[in-house]
Amino acid sequence: MGTAILPPVCFTSLETNLFKVITLTLAVAGAVSSAHADEGQWQPHQLPQLKSELKRIGITIPAEKLADLSKHPLNTMVSLGGCSASFVSNSGLAVTNHHCAYKAIQRNSTAEKNYISEGFLARTKAEELPAGPDAHMYITDKVENVTDQVLKGLTAGMSGRARHEQVENRIKALIADCEQDKAYRCSVPSFHRGLEYYRIRQMMIRDVRLVYAPSDKIGNFGGEVDNFEWPRHTGDYSFLRAYVGKDGRPADPSAENIPYQSKDFLVVSAQGLKNGDPILLAGYPGRTSRYKLPAEIRFARDRSYPAKVAESKADIAVIQAASEGNKTAEVRYASVVKGINNGLKKTEGLLAGFARKDLAAIKDGQDADFRAWYKQHGDNKALLSELDAVIASDMALSEQETAWTIIHTGEMLKSARTLYRVAIESEKPDVERHADYQQRELSFIAGRLNRLEQSYLPNVDQARFTAALQRYNKLPEQAHPPGLDALLPAPESVVSLYQQSQLGNTATRLGWLNKNRAAFDASDDAFIRLAIKLHEIDMALENQRKEVDGNLERIIPQYMQAVIAWKKSIGKPVYPDANSTLRVTYGTVAPYTPRDGISKGPFTTVEGILEKDTGKAPFEAPVNLLASIKDKHYGIFKDKVLNSVPVNFLSTADTTGGNSGSAVLNKNGELVGLNFDSTYESITKDWYFDSAITRAIHVDIRYMLWVMSEVDHADNVLKEMTIKYPAK
Amino acid sequence: MGTAILPPVCFTSLETNLFKVITLTLAVAGAVSSAHADEGQWQPHQLPQLKSELKRIGITIPAEKLADLSKHPLNTMVSLGGCSASFVSNSGLAVTNHHCAYKAIQRNSTAEKNYISEGFLARTKAEELPAGPDAHMYITDKVENVTDQVLKGLTAGMSGRARHEQVENRIKALIADCEQDKAYRCSVPSFHRGLEYYRIRQMMIRDVRLVYAPSDKIGNFGGEVDNFEWPRHTGDYSFLRAYVGKDGRPADPSAENIPYQSKDFLVVSAQGLKNGDPILLAGYPGRTSRYKLPAEIRFARDRSYPAKVAESKADIAVIQAASEGNKTAEVRYASVVKGINNGLKKTEGLLAGFARKDLAAIKDGQDADFRAWYKQHGDNKALLSELDAVIASDMALSEQETAWTIIHTGEMLKSARTLYRVAIESEKPDVERHADYQQRELSFIAGRLNRLEQSYLPNVDQARFTAALQRYNKLPEQAHPPGLDALLPAPESVVSLYQQSQLGNTATRLGWLNKNRAAFDASDDAFIRLAIKLHEIDMALENQRKEVDGNLERIIPQYMQAVIAWKKSIGKPVYPDANSTLRVTYGTVAPYTPRDGISKGPFTTVEGILEKDTGKAPFEAPVNLLASIKDKHYGIFKDKVLNSVPVNFLSTADTTGGNSGSAVLNKNGELVGLNFDSTYESITKDWYFDSAITRAIHVDIRYMLWVMSEVDHADNVLKEMTIKYPAK
Repeated sequence: MGTAILPPVCFTSLETNLFKVITLTLAVAGAVSSAHADEGQWQPHQLPQLKSELKRIGITIPAEKLADLSKHPLNTMVSLGGCSASFVSNSGLAVTNHHCAYKAIQRNSTAEKNYISEGFLARTKAEELPAGPDAHMYITDKVENVTDQVLKGLTAGMSGRARHEQVENRIKALIADCEQDKAYRCSVPSFHRGLEYYRIRQMMIRDVRLVYAPSDKIGNFGGEVDNFEWPRHTGDYSFLRAYVGKDGRPADPSAENIPYQSKDFLVVSAQGLKNGDPILLAGYPGRTSRYKLPAEIRFARDRSYPAKVAESKADIAVIQAASEGNKTAEVRYASVVKGINNGLKKTEGLLAGFARKDLAAIKDGQDADFRAWYKQHGDNKALLSELDAVIASDMALSEQETAWTIIHTGEMLKSARTLYRVAIESEKPDVERHADYQQRELSFIAGRLNRLEQSYLPNVDQARFTAALQRYNKLPEQAHPPGLDALLPAPESVVSLYQQSQLGNTATRLGWLNKNRAAFDASDDAFIRLAIKLHEIDMALENQRKEVDGNLERIIPQYMQAVIAWKKSIGKPVYPDANSTLRVTYGTVAPYTPRDGISKGPFTTVEGILEKDTGKAPFEAPVNLLASIKDKHYGIFKDKVLNSVPVNFLSTADTTGGNSGSAVLNKNGELVGLNFDSTYESITKDWYFDSAITRAIHVDIRYMLWVMSEVDHADNVLKEMTIKYPAK
Repeated sequence: MGTAILPPVCFTSLETNLFKVITLTLAVAGAVSSAHADEGQWQPHQLPQLKSELKRIGITIPAEKLADLSKHPLNTMVSLGGCSASFVSNSGLAVTNHHCAYKAIQRNSTAEKNYISEGFLARTKAEELPAGPDAHMYITDKVENVTDQVLKGLTAGMSGRARHEQVENRIKALIADCEQDKAYRCSVPSFHRGLEYYRIRQMMIRDVRLVYAPSDKIGNFGGEVDNFEWPRHTGDYSFLRAYVGKDGRPADPSAENIPYQSKDFLVVSAQGLKNGDPILLAGYPGRTSRYKLPAEIRFARDRSYPAKVAESKADIAVIQAASEGNKTAEVRYASVVKGINNGLKKTEGLLAGFARKDLAAIKDGQDADFRAWYKQHGDNKALLSELDAVIASDMALSEQETAWTIIHTGEMLKSARTLYRVAIESEKPDVERHADYQQRELSFIAGRLNRLEQSYLPNVDQARFTAALQRYNKLPEQAHPPGLDALLPAPESVVSLYQQSQLGNTATRLGWLNKNRAAFDASDDAFIRLAIKLHEIDMALENQRKEVDGNLERIIPQYMQAVIAWKKSIGKPVYPDANSTLRVTYGTVAPYTPRDGISKGPFTTVEGILEKDTGKAPFEAPVNLLASIKDKHYGIFKDKVLNSVPVNFLSTADTTGGNSGSAVLNKNGELVGLNFDSTYESITKDWYFDSAITRAIHVDIRYMLWVMSEVDHADNVLKEMTIKYPAK
């Protein structure tokens, strides 16, 4: 829970990343001479350099083994495209968060069989339910350093746009080459903002099934109210299974498919952790901004985030006013509002964090130190001024891009523009198309255009678009993309646009996917006409973006190389910003002090569920769960120190969106919990890791096992896993 | 801060009691075979029975010495009438809370010399300022068991009223006899609701002066927002000095007076406490209800407290509406609203506590156990049914008394009725008058009637009275005192009442104090006429109250005697409910868990002041204080564990209203802090002491000394005290 933008795949969460392309890498520049406690989303290959630190905190797995993707435990890690998971049996059984499997649970639920509120348990494989066409598991297969292929021959004199297009085309070619085998999904992410590129091939399992999920009264206990909060009492876990064809290769969903034979799996330890114990956490963190410049923090803090908050609030208010009293509208827009609210809470949390601690000033200090060092040791005297200039151009352009996003509030214009763009791009050979509109993306685009009907009503959409145009009109002059104002409809004419468009009809909308540009040009659908009119502005913005990005890609790697050298010179660790590739972080189970005089965590216990339970959502625990707590029927899962079953715990691990469902391992590499959220005070960690207050929130494996055994009687799932129980 | 009713003397506070008669006692029934951790407001003479428990927690002062009022440390304890204090030099220098000296600070402040915001420091005795005519110090001189004299010859057959009047008259006579020497104020409080009576003689020092108070930016940092809250960062302390005539006896304020030579004083220890350290706390707790019946808890929880909350909220709303936009009204009513709000917060806290924990159910269990025991061991088979009947009659009458209180909202009717009652009572010999209207009370009454002008405006008072009458009219039938409705003015005629009354004028109002009943009868002042009309209702309610109280005084002691015997049989400690007499409690410095997954306390540090400071009241710390914190200029006051100066700390000591300013002593009896508040979760402790969550809040002596030395440079005060500093 908590991301600003719902990922285009199927899962949403704070710890769900912003990207759909899930990637994995082996290496990047930057040696580490001494590690700082708990900060760091390490690339696996970096772990041997952190050997002494891992040993110091008590990790017993050899760092070399931890660095090897083909060996346990990293070979058990799976990406769900926005969430993380891990195999816990050799028959493709994977454990992740409840919120990561939420859509799979939801799509199988009906009024009669409400698996959301009742939970779901397949007692046999035959009872397992399809997780849906959007549900995939990505298992990394091959990783190659392609930096040379991406960057060779690029000259300093090229325009930013030419450079960017060249890089894009090379990446597209590398991906196309890789995806000739349809079993795979490939990607070429950059590290350190363009310093290195890796091609990552992932087996994409297309038949994923729901095995077991507790009731959302457990899996989402506390709901939005507790989102980002501690104390937390959420049993945020569920189980999925990967299925493949009889040949062992990914296949479309079919009754003929068989469970995927996972190479390895995690052993579960019910022996539990205590305060101060070391942990390892592996997963696919989405995006961080730890190396941004002070000017970029200030821009976010003073301009883009406040604007985003205002936009979100305004849009929510419009949706609520337009839906009021209309039950259908309220239902359809519930998840839209929830999505906006998630982003809003995160952005507000970031602003609150910025208000609490002057990160820009901290960065100023670091930046000044770096610049002083660079003056002595740097080789490109123009680098820093070039850097400042390109960052300034990036921020200026992003204001226009924000304005452009605002006028796409609501779904009609967005859909029309997607459809028209598909038609235009389809005229080109696939390899020349914009990456987002290549053949490989079309099924995802169709899926989004189809799903739209679940969260759309004409009158609400019309209200959103009208209000958005009004807000756009009030933006400062420099935020208006040149030429756009003249092309936009007046807010008061929006009504007639909706009357003169058929795109709200799903069949009509999807039908446009197969039409060519001439058909669009001949159409009198009002939104198609508007999309065509706006195309030139889109292209202008896109080309400006390419120019800026090309320049960023030229300058930033030089800057990052210098930063890495500088940090190395002062013994500071360097890890690349998160980019949805597999990372390992480590830390300890630890409480924190949010304010002088208060200590939070590190554990909550099932007694806290009794404390919070009101009998009303989101604090309505199942009655049998409550009864078991009242009876203190804890069995082997009782922690001797806490004298209860631990529910959630805090660690100092360095996580972010995308880490939802990440396996939390004990010092021996055994599964002891799942990551699912962070504390409110941690929100600014995407910009700056403050080890005093940053804590990730995990669900304790003992709570999961206790619920499975005591409440849900998921004996078959328990039996399938290998569980080490504590000595009685 | 936090009492519902402002005490008639000069100090207000959560830990300020509800009574004006400050008393002290030596003994009461009830031996203790084993002590329960930290619960207990022990009479000093009980401490030897707690010897092993005191030793167990680490107290080194011999229990026998602790029990002796003439020996250190109890001989240093002072009552301020609603607050507690203690001598810290042999020249009458006493330390108490800032909020206990607030009126003394306020009355000396002007726009030019604002001692509230700037603080006050007398660098010489000559600079010390009069604390005001209401400020007294009470030093206990003599304590006698007068139970026999109060109760002898009372027969079981007497009516409740006859019994009560008999007891009242005997107490009045005992007091009158004691107060023949005008240097003394005497009282005869009851213990265990009438089981025992003690006559307590206290030297009443009438010349009290303000020596030193920090700015309210320190002394009231956090203000109402932090009231009852933790984490807390309030430097709630100040210093007063007792003055007497040259003969060493109490005297009216005069420049000729000399400092009182205190027999003994507390040594101050700057060595500090740490988590788990034992503490002793001595002071004058006001009132607790630990032995009430389940029916009484339910009545408070379901009827009287919710009604009180509704009344308070309604009255505040009326005051605010009537004052809005009128600066004078806002200023005059600020303290009135603050007082109502204090009570409201406490009552709401009590209700929240009742909602959290079903105290009535806990009491049901205890009550059932007791009744089962009594069936076997009790000697009066009718006792329990008689008890239930008299408690029921008490609750029924109290509903009418509440209604009677409601119609006295505002000041005019209250003043008129007080004045008329004084005239009526003055016709009798002093010893026969109602205790509240005897000669010894007249100066207090005059003081209140005089001070009224600081918090009165006719239009606001009129609005309050009108609204109160409207609320009265809506009360259920059984709450209306018989005959009252016909005598009350219609709400719409209140306007003319105010037009036809001169009591709003202070001189006129005070003038009526000297008039006889005939003058009242001849008056055409509308409020005087109303007061006369209502007199018969007042008398009827008073006589009913005497009847009920007389019955309570007959039954409850028998019940309490049985409860004491029962508790003794199960090894439970027995201490009498607080009654504003000197008590000693002990405990340890300890954090607590308000909710699963959170721990609060036990210390806050000066860094927390930086965290909270907003530059605006109530979170506006003085700039020099902030600067000293930023510079970490902590010197000898830095706690080695906390690495900072501790500000406030929590202990498990059993306190209540009246304990404000109580000395917190370390195991050696040295002063290490001052009690000033309790946590929000502790509010229900007046009914039931839940040792898991009940915590008293103290200001750490190290913070006081650090502010005195670093911020306020109160070197003369520091020099006057005897301070043990830690080894460097």
